[in-house]
Amino acid sequence: MNAIDRPEAAVRVELGERGYDILIGSGLLAAAGAAIRERLGAVRLAVVTDENVAAIHLPALLLALRAADLDAITIVLPPGEATKSLEHLEAVVDQVLEARLERGDAVVALGGGVIGDLAGFAAAIVRRGMSFVQIPTSLLAQVDSSVGGKTGINSRLGKNLIGAFHQPALVLADTAVLDTLPAREFAAGYAEVAKYGLLGDADFFAWLEENRAAVFAGGAARTRAIAVSCRAKAAIVAADEREQGERALLNLGHTFGHALEAAAGFDARRLVHGEAVAIGMALAHRFSAGLGLAPGADAERVERHLRAAGLPTAISDVPGSAIEADELMRHIGQDKKVRQGRLTFILTRGIGRAFVAGDVSPGEVRSFLEAELAR
Amino acid sequence: MNAIDRPEAAVRVELGERGYDILIGSGLLAAAGAAIRERLGAVRLAVVTDENVAAIHLPALLLALRAADLDAITIVLPPGEATKSLEHLEAVVDQVLEARLERGDAVVALGGGVIGDLAGFAAAIVRRGMSFVQIPTSLLAQVDSSVGGKTGINSRLGKNLIGAFHQPALVLADTAVLDTLPAREFAAGYAEVAKYGLLGDADFFAWLEENRAAVFAGGAARTRAIAVSCRAKAAIVAADEREQGERALLNLGHTFGHALEAAAGFDARRLVHGEAVAIGMALAHRFSAGLGLAPGADAERVERHLRAAGLPTAISDVPGSAIEADELMRHIGQDKKVRQGRLTFILTRGIGRAFVAGDVSPGEVRSFLEAELAR
Ligand SMILES: NC(=O)c1ccc[n+]([C@@H]2O[C@H](COP(=O)([O-])OP(=O)(O)OC[C@H]3O[C@@H](n4cnc5c(N)ncnc54)[C@H](O)[C@@H]3O)[C@@H](O)[C@H]2O)c1
Ligand SMILES: NC(=O)c1ccc[n+]([C@@H]2O[C@H](COP(=O)([O-])OP(=O)(O)OC[C@H]3O[C@@H](n4cnc5c(N)ncnc54)[C@H](O)[C@@H]3O)[C@@H](O)[C@H]2O)c1
Ligand SMILES: [Zn+2]
Ligand SMILES: [Zn+2]
Repeated sequence: MNAIDRPEAAVRVELGERGYDILIGSGLLAAAGAAIRERLGAVRLAVVTDENVAAIHLPALLLALRAADLDAITIVLPPGEATKSLEHLEAVVDQVLEARLERGDAVVALGGGVIGDLAGFAAAIVRRGMSFVQIPTSLLAQVDSSVGGKTGINSRLGKNLIGAFHQPALVLADTAVLDTLPAREFAAGYAEVAKYGLLGDADFFAWLEENRAAVFAGGAARTRAIAVSCRAKAAIVAADEREQGERALLNLGHTFGHALEAAAGFDARRLVHGEAVAIGMALAHRFSAGLGLAPGADAERVERHLRAAGLPTAISDVPGSAIEADELMRHIGQDKKVRQGRLTFILTRGIGRAFVAGDVSPGEVRSFLEAELAR
Repeated sequence: MNAIDRPEAAVRVELGERGYDILIGSGLLAAAGAAIRERLGAVRLAVVTDENVAAIHLPALLLALRAADLDAITIVLPPGEATKSLEHLEAVVDQVLEARLERGDAVVALGGGVIGDLAGFAAAIVRRGMSFVQIPTSLLAQVDSSVGGKTGINSRLGKNLIGAFHQPALVLADTAVLDTLPAREFAAGYAEVAKYGLLGDADFFAWLEENRAAVFAGGAARTRAIAVSCRAKAAIVAADEREQGERALLNLGHTFGHALEAAAGFDARRLVHGEAVAIGMALAHRFSAGLGLAPGADAERVERHLRAAGLPTAISDVPGSAIEADELMRHIGQDKKVRQGRLTFILTRGIGRAFVAGDVSPGEVRSFLEAELAR
């Protein structure tokens, strides 16, 4: 229980009356019941999770809820991106309503970003908004998707096209649950950790260069990396809750990354999101260097660090049939971040110095991609 | 075009940066393009409407949009409450996405409350929130559903259980389009107009007693009745956007009303919403009088006025098989407004003096209903 009174780290997301805490540390799952009761009171809960996470971590959560005398129903969904569908959303919403949960009751997401996005969106729309608690279990979810209130599902027309902004009341990031995460998923989440260094905190990136192995191993370095990441995201979210400006910096590596994911058919065997972001960040740095905006040496440092973390950094690293410039351009053109024929990219002046470039010419992007593919 | 520069009436909904105007007057439909362009700029539009309204009013709207050089796609749905479903929501969302509308583009609802609720919810969730314009064409929608930002659909577990708060950027209430509304629908909407008098504005109710026929006929009296109603709702919404307190007053007549609608199987041939509310308001006044809270004479005035407007005021007025106290109690118990076994009702101390009673005993409600049924 001590874990909630004195978590190893805590980050406040400053959003006025929608503000909330992210508690970070090893063993927090066992304190989840107490933490929820302390903040939300004697609410009824619907725990949403996926089969993988349920098999390993659900019993501990249910035990913790029972210890705090909190009633919960459990909704277990198949793992994977395909779960972020209208069909599964309906199933969750129906079960929450069948259990007769009210507005003040809470949906709890126990899982990675897929579960967090889906369960959060369900919480946003049941009775026009129920309380919501995030217990992220993947590194990506702990440092990224659980913070900031973006929730949603995929449409057959694209990823994350249907959703809502709905802030959680509490985020509990138990760093120990990451020990059971597949290595590839851990590395993928690490790409987002590195992103916070690259977009605005050169010291943090340098610290990661020194401490990467320790972060992967667990313990204090992991907690620190997660806390710094959450703090960075929280600050950006607080400045721009509804993503109209500064929040765009979080898309460093993501315009290229999304295009790569689409070109790979969103096939997780070929590429998972964090891997796509790793390649995207490497590309963004090389593109910026090529435009004379950033030192070439920085692009090389980025590539070296990501490779050391087991991440891909070039388009040709994607297994399976070769990805072509044409296809990437098509996806880049379809991205939400297009306005009046010019492209918006996050470019950089060097490590820790990313910026929003609203006026990138499609021709320059294409030449760059062709050169990359020939490299 | 003059209609938008000098509408007959305008009401501001004061919600800070989410604030917006309701323009009210005869002929506004023809000025819709100019009004939208003035406030939202050169946006692209998706007009959502139903078959009935499309047949009569869609051409005029499209003409007005074209005159203002605004591009629009049109989505025509079947009329009726059944359209507020996840299936139709998906269809609207898909078509909006297929047309590649962006966040700053707008969904336009042209229709009654069904279309407004559905289209507004679609606008709330496409790309986590697009702009939204209401062009309400039923009296109910002009005085009630288009104001306040409640959007949503029905679940098989109940009405309006899935939704969001999403404020429109503009509401255009063309009072002349109500001329084509079926008489029964006009009367049903009028129940909500009378509600604003009953819940907090005795002078307005007295004015309605004098001017009912003129309101039904159209012209200045109708515009005034709509403007006063919108102003009343806007004030309540501004004080309590997310329905945590004062906004509950708007539920005058609705706890009984919803139970009646459910008992009548949501069959519009037996009872439409406004009729249920009319009976509910009559019941709320008689219940309050019976509890010694309000003068019996006020209950009689309410009944007389609603009857003169062609509205039902007693449970036995509902055609079809008799509705029983048991069934009503079951639905009342399932209503969202139940907490810890006590019932929340809007009761009244007399015309214009409604209040939220959070602690009504189910036993008293049942005795009252039994007496009503024996009456
Ligand atoms: N809302 C946001 O702001 C935001 C930001 C970034 C990404 N996302 C979304 O997040 C999703 C990706 O999240 P993700 O990478 O966590 O994917 P995920 O939820 O699919 O989890 C990855 C895999 O790891 C498994 N897993 C999770 N935790 C585990 C644990 N502790 N032990 C063992 N296995 C575990 C899952 O079952 C799954 O198979 C995408 O849908 C993306 O769109 C959202
Ligand atoms: N969002 C809110 O705050 C709120 C408040 C009250 C009611 N509602 C919802 O509103 C809905 C009821 O709205 P409604 O009464 O407008 O129902 P509706 O939308 O079904 O319209 C009633 C009928 O009138 C027709 N119609 C509408 N305008 C017309 C016109 N000008 N000429 C001819 N026919 C016309 C429609 O086609 C329909 O057949 C319900 O679903 C209710 O839940 C929402
Ligand atoms: Zn990402
Ligand atoms: Zn109503």
